[in-house]
Amino acid sequence: METATEIIVRPTELDVLGHVNNAKYLEYLEWGREEWYEKHDLHFDVFTEMGLGTVTANININYRKEVTQGERLTVKTRPLRRGRTSYVIAQEIFNASKDLVADAEVTLVIIDLNTRQSSPLPEKLARLFP
Amino acid sequence: METATEIIVRPTELDVLGHVNNAKYLEYLEWGREEWYEKHDLHFDVFTEMGLGTVTANININYRKEVTQGERLTVKTRPLRRGRTSYVIAQEIFNASKDLVADAEVTLVIIDLNTRQSSPLPEKLARLFP
Amino acid sequence: METATEIIVRPTELDVLGHVNNAKYLEYLEWGREEWYEKHDLHFDVFTEMGLGTVTANININYRKEVTQGERLTVKTRPLRRGRTSYVIAQEIFNASKDLVADAEVTLVIIDLNTRQSSPLPEKLARLFP
Amino acid sequence: METATEIIVRPTELDVLGHVNNAKYLEYLEWGREEWYEKHDLHFDVFTEMGLGTVTANININYRKEVTQGERLTVKTRPLRRGRTSYVIAQEIFNASKDLVADAEVTLVIIDLNTRQSSPLPEKLARLFP
Repeated sequence: METATEIIVRPTELDVLGHVNNAKYLEYLEWGREEWYEKHDLHFDVFTEMGLGTVTANININYRKEVTQGERLTVKTRPLRRGRTSYVIAQEIFNASKDLVADAEVTLVIIDLNTRQSSPLPEKLARLFP
Repeated sequence: METATEIIVRPTELDVLGHVNNAKYLEYLEWGREEWYEKHDLHFDVFTEMGLGTVTANININYRKEVTQGERLTVKTRPLRRGRTSYVIAQEIFNASKDLVADAEVTLVIIDLNTRQSSPLPEKLARLFP
Repeated sequence: METATEIIVRPTELDVLGHVNNAKYLEYLEWGREEWYEKHDLHFDVFTEMGLGTVTANININYRKEVTQGERLTVKTRPLRRGRTSYVIAQEIFNASKDLVADAEVTLVIIDLNTRQSSPLPEKLARLFP
Repeated sequence: METATEIIVRPTELDVLGHVNNAKYLEYLEWGREEWYEKHDLHFDVFTEMGLGTVTANININYRKEVTQGERLTVKTRPLRRGRTSYVIAQEIFNASKDLVADAEVTLVIIDLNTRQSSPLPEKLARLFP
């Protein structure tokens, strides 16, 4: 159910303070979600063929620890809960010492690509939630 | 008390879906906070000279509306509330039609640059809060 | 023939050395080319409707001067020369003191979106070159 | 003498055309150079302790092939030639099918961090060149 995405922090991902900037963490989280979807055979194209899209509605992220160049991070991604048309993914980023670097809840909504209105979770996605 | 930062969405800020990616919004918010600090004569260097730094502890952001290339956005930034060593900045992004595109609360902590421990808000910052 | 795009350097565009990173300059150049195309009524959609795309083949950029946060830059963009299926755009970035910050020649190729092969410049684009 | 840096193309690195944007390639190249310096025990800090810095003077890059999400790339980095105060690094990016995706020559200059003037290559760097 949970995926673990391995990342190496690259030099151009640091800001002027010498650590990874707060916005970059959201990219790391997206890389983790991408891998989670793909592991469950829910590639972007699979949604598109169903006429559906996923839209980010809310991200609530706690920053716990600085990250610097060359660090190896693990982004853990798991399904947390779901409603009829929305769902929440829980994500945690750990460093090589297993310290929690950041944790987040990401709320997404399924939309119908034609009407642009919210739409029920497809069964293939819905059954991944506890 | 509130600042309004004007932004033009640039082509390299779009993702594969043709809209601004969720992580990029956090950069827009940071540009807004930077202007807010500078308007109140609290440049990065001013903190450094006091031996203090600001660290992002939490961001809670709602995504309300898609944004695409060439759009003119306004990032509004204002002080919301504060504790002894932390404070919350409220930010809203509007498009040219005055639609709310995103809103966020950003919690920051003041740290002592030597001890890396949390430290009381400097008076110059504290008095900006209601 | 020449466009001038105004840019403000934003805090998240700095790297660990406190200046704008070499890769970011290429984004600035792309923002400038985008404006140049749009000023000549050659929006991305116009190419697509003709069944054509533009592909970057080469960029040769000289870095002349450091750029730091808050600086106001001007990206100048002009057509330099063209062949049958490719063309070269000359671009220069200046700071607020009119110092040359960077200059580049960008070579692009027109491709047929169906065959993915190179294709002659459309007349609307070709006539912009000296 | 040559290093090979392994990269996975991440979803937020794609642009609206669904491929990696031209500016992002320069970041990939920088990641490759970073590894090359580190493999030769020439970390950023080593230069700083010698009172020296490296400044990018020119990048000449050919784009050969599109790259899309999830692709595994290899950035090869090797010393090409040097002068008294400047040097050229040759870099190539290959995809998983060993196709050449991009190749570049990157010219860098050694500067004295105090005077900000160009300075001879330190011996440790100079001897890496053929």
